[in-house]
Amino acid sequence: MYMRRLFFFALSLSSLIANAQQEDSIFIKRISDEIFINGKAYDNLHELTKTIGGRLSGSPQMVMAEQWGLKTMQQSGADKAWLQECQVPHWVRGGKDEATATVNKKKTKLNVLALGNSIGTDGKKLNAGVILVNSFDDVEAKKDELKGKIVFYNYKFNPTFVSPFQAYGDAVRYRGQGPSRAAKYGAVAVIVRSMSHGMNNYPHTGATRYDSAYAKIPALAIGLRDADWLDEQLKKAAVTISLKTNAHFLADTTGHNVIGELTGSEFPDQYITVGGHLDSWDPAEGAHDDGTGVVQTMEILRTFKALGYKPKHTIRFVLFANEENGLRGGTKYAEEAKSKKEKHIFALESDAGGFTPRGFGFNATDEQVSKAQKWSILLAPYSGGTLVKGGDGADIGPLQRTFNMPAAGLNPDPQRYFDYHHAANDVFENVNKRELELGAINMAALIYLVDKYGL
Amino acid sequence: MYMRRLFFFALSLSSLIANAQQEDSIFIKRISDEIFINGKAYDNLHELTKTIGGRLSGSPQMVMAEQWGLKTMQQSGADKAWLQECQVPHWVRGGKDEATATVNKKKTKLNVLALGNSIGTDGKKLNAGVILVNSFDDVEAKKDELKGKIVFYNYKFNPTFVSPFQAYGDAVRYRGQGPSRAAKYGAVAVIVRSMSHGMNNYPHTGATRYDSAYAKIPALAIGLRDADWLDEQLKKAAVTISLKTNAHFLADTTGHNVIGELTGSEFPDQYITVGGHLDSWDPAEGAHDDGTGVVQTMEILRTFKALGYKPKHTIRFVLFANEENGLRGGTKYAEEAKSKKEKHIFALESDAGGFTPRGFGFNATDEQVSKAQKWSILLAPYSGGTLVKGGDGADIGPLQRTFNMPAAGLNPDPQRYFDYHHAANDVFENVNKRELELGAINMAALIYLVDKYGL
Repeated sequence: MYMRRLFFFALSLSSLIANAQQEDSIFIKRISDEIFINGKAYDNLHELTKTIGGRLSGSPQMVMAEQWGLKTMQQSGADKAWLQECQVPHWVRGGKDEATATVNKKKTKLNVLALGNSIGTDGKKLNAGVILVNSFDDVEAKKDELKGKIVFYNYKFNPTFVSPFQAYGDAVRYRGQGPSRAAKYGAVAVIVRSMSHGMNNYPHTGATRYDSAYAKIPALAIGLRDADWLDEQLKKAAVTISLKTNAHFLADTTGHNVIGELTGSEFPDQYITVGGHLDSWDPAEGAHDDGTGVVQTMEILRTFKALGYKPKHTIRFVLFANEENGLRGGTKYAEEAKSKKEKHIFALESDAGGFTPRGFGFNATDEQVSKAQKWSILLAPYSGGTLVKGGDGADIGPLQRTFNMPAAGLNPDPQRYFDYHHAANDVFENVNKRELELGAINMAALIYLVDKYGL
Repeated sequence: MYMRRLFFFALSLSSLIANAQQEDSIFIKRISDEIFINGKAYDNLHELTKTIGGRLSGSPQMVMAEQWGLKTMQQSGADKAWLQECQVPHWVRGGKDEATATVNKKKTKLNVLALGNSIGTDGKKLNAGVILVNSFDDVEAKKDELKGKIVFYNYKFNPTFVSPFQAYGDAVRYRGQGPSRAAKYGAVAVIVRSMSHGMNNYPHTGATRYDSAYAKIPALAIGLRDADWLDEQLKKAAVTISLKTNAHFLADTTGHNVIGELTGSEFPDQYITVGGHLDSWDPAEGAHDDGTGVVQTMEILRTFKALGYKPKHTIRFVLFANEENGLRGGTKYAEEAKSKKEKHIFALESDAGGFTPRGFGFNATDEQVSKAQKWSILLAPYSGGTLVKGGDGADIGPLQRTFNMPAAGLNPDPQRYFDYHHAANDVFENVNKRELELGAINMAALIYLVDKYGL
């Protein structure tokens, strides 16, 4: 009898689970149909990239993007929408960066771009001999030769990592620390091989960080074809480079996070945050980085409203300020949440490009990850069923560390991201409408599941 | 004691399996490193697409491509390589296809492309009123109005299917059967909405098939923006179209499959076939369809030679002739295999584009699919771990039906394929090097596993 009861209990439990899963499956299909049929993400991305374009912190385009974000958040159906003020750094490129190499008296123009936060050359041309280094070990080995020279870091993206994000993690220290580690030994400027596998010649910018112990020196990224060419020349002959950049900082200025809210029906004072960052580097349109995250975020809001979905918890849709060179938006959001004693239960970020989603990475406990992995069967039909431990996002990092709650990041297919990242070809035309929409579908589905079941 | 023996047996069996899997994992990593570091697939694709371009059966480019294929097969390290002759159809476009719509006396040029196998307009312009139909049901409903008219099939790709291949399967009957089903009721030509989600305006060609019971009438594809425009006009006013195409058939001519072989060390008379098709439609470079399958096929050969891998079975690398409008290459390959009483144990095809692989689809028994699925853990790190029942490829179809052996097709991410399929933008620039290489890595790994363990 006992066995029989247990059996019936188990049966009814599993049919309850089956019913719930069927209900979820049906709702996620409705999300998918709504986004594939009536989606606005692609049109919104077109507007953001083509009418505003690059929108670095402090730029006039930043202000335009904030106003556009607020308007689009309202049009997407937010119960309330507002701007959250924060101070942001104001670095400007100040015109076109230039570099010309001279080899055996022959001059060749190089395709370069000052790294974000770099200082400039004081309106003058800086001329110096070039020293090739392939690693920081190489810097140490050649430390006595660096004084008065331009150091050329030619560390390559490792092709054997299946994910280019691993290659980026491996190589990006040369962009971050390269200038100061060369300045330590008297170098006058650095040129850094772009962080990319892509074999076009676009230089890829991105933030560098000066170590205050050493002199600040100008730092430029160079396109891959020019990097290979320069490497080739340096094996045969002495090379001098004449370079110029007007990069400099102005005083910090006022920027804003754009926030929209759907008020929770059961737990209005418990928050789920989903977002991407609104700022982007100046040489491009900031399409994959991170226009796609921005429009996916608002697409989830639009979809929930279109389907009449009333979340149990309050959902915050956030377009973060200043991810690229300061993280002031994400920091401000966490500080205000803390000072207002808000309760945050989950956060999700999309900042790895608008490519076909593969799944999500979770910064969460093993138990929470296991719970999320049970949803894999619901997301797999939409290409996002690979749920793994590890990952979230830069902007939601301060929030996650403040509240120690679970957080996640969308993991799209990673192969093309660094072809475009921080380079002039990060434009609308390189985003595929359906890949972008599939990302929004999976994000909306995950938010729905977390809202319904918690994590 | 019995239990204990069983336990030890199970233990040693599982450690044997673990050892074998570790060995396989190491070898597949060597495949991956070889292709990512020394890969030739991307350069080979550049050569094929940029020096030869479109290579429809019977064209001079077909002959060039065959010679290029033979040379590249030899350079990739084939023990033997040869051309296998077959007769192929020889359809030609005969110049630029044209169509101009007249609405309220205003003329508008349309972006059109004759469907493959279409007849032409005898050097004249064909003028007629246009009737919009959205389905074959619509054809039946309007059958009394079609006489002397141009029928415009505006059936759309269904956006709610997650895989565009499903939308293609749903819509492509209008390209295949549309002309004859309109001719049945006296239509004089058809214009078919292109088989694509992509919202640019490239018309997408592809084979149509005339039903010999009805008159053959000219058939053209139209770009999506023009299709939407035409649909819009037809809601408001009468539209006439003047169209011209010089499409026609010449006599069948001689084409060839390009075949390379690595001779098996244990079972030289048992064959594993891997291939893609060499022919491609004329308006483009045939990059994703199927230049990528062609160069991936030869990349597997090059990699096995570079790693010193000696297969147990003989592996055939085949660049098939005439997939697009006749399948004569695949048919010939199967016929000769049958007449020579060869033993074929497996075949693999890549003809769904050079995008990031997701896995393979198998035309095989449940037992064989289950066996293959145990390899998922080995392929997943390379993005190809989703192994499903269902699928193989057009070219290996005749072989599979002749020998009733297991066959499989590479399943890349499907979202972008129909943006380029049979259209002018199917060019080298739209192929990503690493996505292409990942496909070759997974294909090489699967061939290695089947060669080692059978299926």
